Amino acid sequence: MIVETENVRFHSLALDCGVTLAPVDVAYEGWGELNQAKTNAVLILHAFSGDAHAAGISAETGKPGWWDNMIGPGKAFDTNKYFVICSNVLGGCRGTTGPSSLNPETGRPYAMSFPLITMGDMVRLQKMLVEHLGIERLLAVAGGSMGGMQVLEWVVRYPQSVAAAFPIAGTARHSAQQIAFNEVGRQAIMADPDWNGGDYYSGKPPGRGLSVARMVGHVTYMSDDSMREKFGRRLRNKASPVFSFDDEFEVESYLRHRGTQFVDRFDANSYLYITKAMDIFDLAQGFGSLGAALERSQARFLVISFTSDWLYPSYQSLEIVSALRSRNRDVAYCELSSNYGHDAFLVEVGEQTELIRGFLARVYKEAG
Amino acid sequence: MIVETENVRFHSLALDCGVTLAPVDVAYEGWGELNQAKTNAVLILHAFSGDAHAAGISAETGKPGWWDNMIGPGKAFDTNKYFVICSNVLGGCRGTTGPSSLNPETGRPYAMSFPLITMGDMVRLQKMLVEHLGIERLLAVAGGSMGGMQVLEWVVRYPQSVAAAFPIAGTARHSAQQIAFNEVGRQAIMADPDWNGGDYYSGKPPGRGLSVARMVGHVTYMSDDSMREKFGRRLRNKASPVFSFDDEFEVESYLRHRGTQFVDRFDANSYLYITKAMDIFDLAQGFGSLGAALERSQARFLVISFTSDWLYPSYQSLEIVSALRSRNRDVAYCELSSNYGHDAFLVEVGEQTELIRGFLARVYKEAG
Repeated sequence: MIVETENVRFHSLALDCGVTLAPVDVAYEGWGELNQAKTNAVLILHAFSGDAHAAGISAETGKPGWWDNMIGPGKAFDTNKYFVICSNVLGGCRGTTGPSSLNPETGRPYAMSFPLITMGDMVRLQKMLVEHLGIERLLAVAGGSMGGMQVLEWVVRYPQSVAAAFPIAGTARHSAQQIAFNEVGRQAIMADPDWNGGDYYSGKPPGRGLSVARMVGHVTYMSDDSMREKFGRRLRNKASPVFSFDDEFEVESYLRHRGTQFVDRFDANSYLYITKAMDIFDLAQGFGSLGAALERSQARFLVISFTSDWLYPSYQSLEIVSALRSRNRDVAYCELSSNYGHDAFLVEVGEQTELIRGFLARVYKEAG
Repeated sequence: MIVETENVRFHSLALDCGVTLAPVDVAYEGWGELNQAKTNAVLILHAFSGDAHAAGISAETGKPGWWDNMIGPGKAFDTNKYFVICSNVLGGCRGTTGPSSLNPETGRPYAMSFPLITMGDMVRLQKMLVEHLGIERLLAVAGGSMGGMQVLEWVVRYPQSVAAAFPIAGTARHSAQQIAFNEVGRQAIMADPDWNGGDYYSGKPPGRGLSVARMVGHVTYMSDDSMREKFGRRLRNKASPVFSFDDEFEVESYLRHRGTQFVDRFDANSYLYITKAMDIFDLAQGFGSLGAALERSQARFLVISFTSDWLYPSYQSLEIVSALRSRNRDVAYCELSSNYGHDAFLVEVGEQTELIRGFLARVYKEAG
């Protein structure tokens, strides 16, 4: 299933911060076919470092999508039945307008003159895309991690437009610890002299800082158990013991490799803007309480979290579930047993598939 | 109780890596009086970023010691009864020989030509200090975190020299996750151009990298709960919402402040060497198993861990306890309830005091 990334340009987008961004490009991909009644569309929302290429094989890179194990014929999001869409978020660096995009007023990249963006802005742009595709109401919105945060924003902002919602390994607001880990990453980037106040697009990007930021991220995405299983205390080149700084533990070279890889595909300023949008996201803001916010929603919810996820712990999903229940909203919750930590939402395909497939089929049948 | 840091110079120290370091300076402090029989000496072992100034008020800086709440007249380590000693570790930067010390062969700081050091080397140097002070057998060795690792090294390396051992919030070997967090810190330092391959002593130290490394550390020292209690989502300068990169969460400015502060008192190369020594430490190495290693010990153990410590989780203390029990060694274990995460060993004074005071008094009485 070869897939091409599509692009659409919108005239402008009014942001929560008061600034109007113009124009705004959105990169997206689609799988399956929209039915005549336009009732089978599912919007997938990607996590922090994801992009529009959620499924299939990219025509450009030849690589499978980041949720290819969940989206496709016969999979959790069955493209034989549903029309599945995913777009790169606002502020991103994979086709959608972000800090690395050209500012038409200057002819140079926005860099740090890019306005502060929010989860609400990201979702408003997604709504424009969905309408552009002729879809009034989505059968479902689904996503893990930051994708789960966008799911929540969707159901509160556009309650009439979502039939089913799948916030996975997400939260209604970041804890101090989550903000802290993001801040470490931001400081690592800004400590790199090549960051240069964000103005590096004509030179060398702040690769060392971005790489360190990504390393921190990877440690938080895995669990203590999964790191032990994957690496333990194995050394890269010899048995033991270590008597030089060059003798590496496997976990060290893995993290460095992942850090370096990331620099080739991600923009450091996007890192700053998107993590900040995550940190300032607070679903309850303006409503007085999480319950009051979620009372607006009309969707049927399936909330999923994972036992070993310490970055987005189950208690954060349970806060969402409690708030929905307190307002008599339709919500199912599953805490899946997994050793994979936060990465579980990307790799624990079996149980997620069973849960989501059945839930989606029921909502589709009842709505149809 | 004003205290001066003392210094002693030893001719040389043969290291585990095969290199002989000469000369070797040790900075230490002492509180209380050594009795005539020399049976009341307690050696305190500091954590990664600690130093010899564990108690009292420093004559030099006017600041209290890092474990001043635990060491002093009537405290857990009662200086009315015991002679308490603490020395800066080998590889450190607070008076004991480390990478920032002058290499007598070149007249310049060792920097990265400093040999790789181990927990064993640190402890061997402590033994030299203790003998220099005329003490053959210690009533107790005690320490938290890396201090706990040194306690284990002591009881295995010098079984006849320790009557009681208090490994607190420690481990017999680092997990992949613990190595990973240390490696993130090391990479942050080495990514700073001012690090300059370790050769920065005549210029600007790699303050930005070291500060980021320290920020990561602080996140791991606290618990999710304690960060929520201390910072929550409070903003520094205003109520809400955030619409600029300059609007800071309190947790962000706290971490940055702690990072910057650290640069004034810690050497970046010491960071590299000491974290590496922690990562390569494996008490079982050369013995076949942890049980076989600890079978050598003759001390009475009180092992302490804390419920919310996710950096040195209780299961690591329980591994030590199980290994000791499997060899019929004398061991008591307490998991203390605390919200403070790894920092608990520094702040949970009440219960630790009760436990340690009683245990120490009993061993002292039986030995005396």
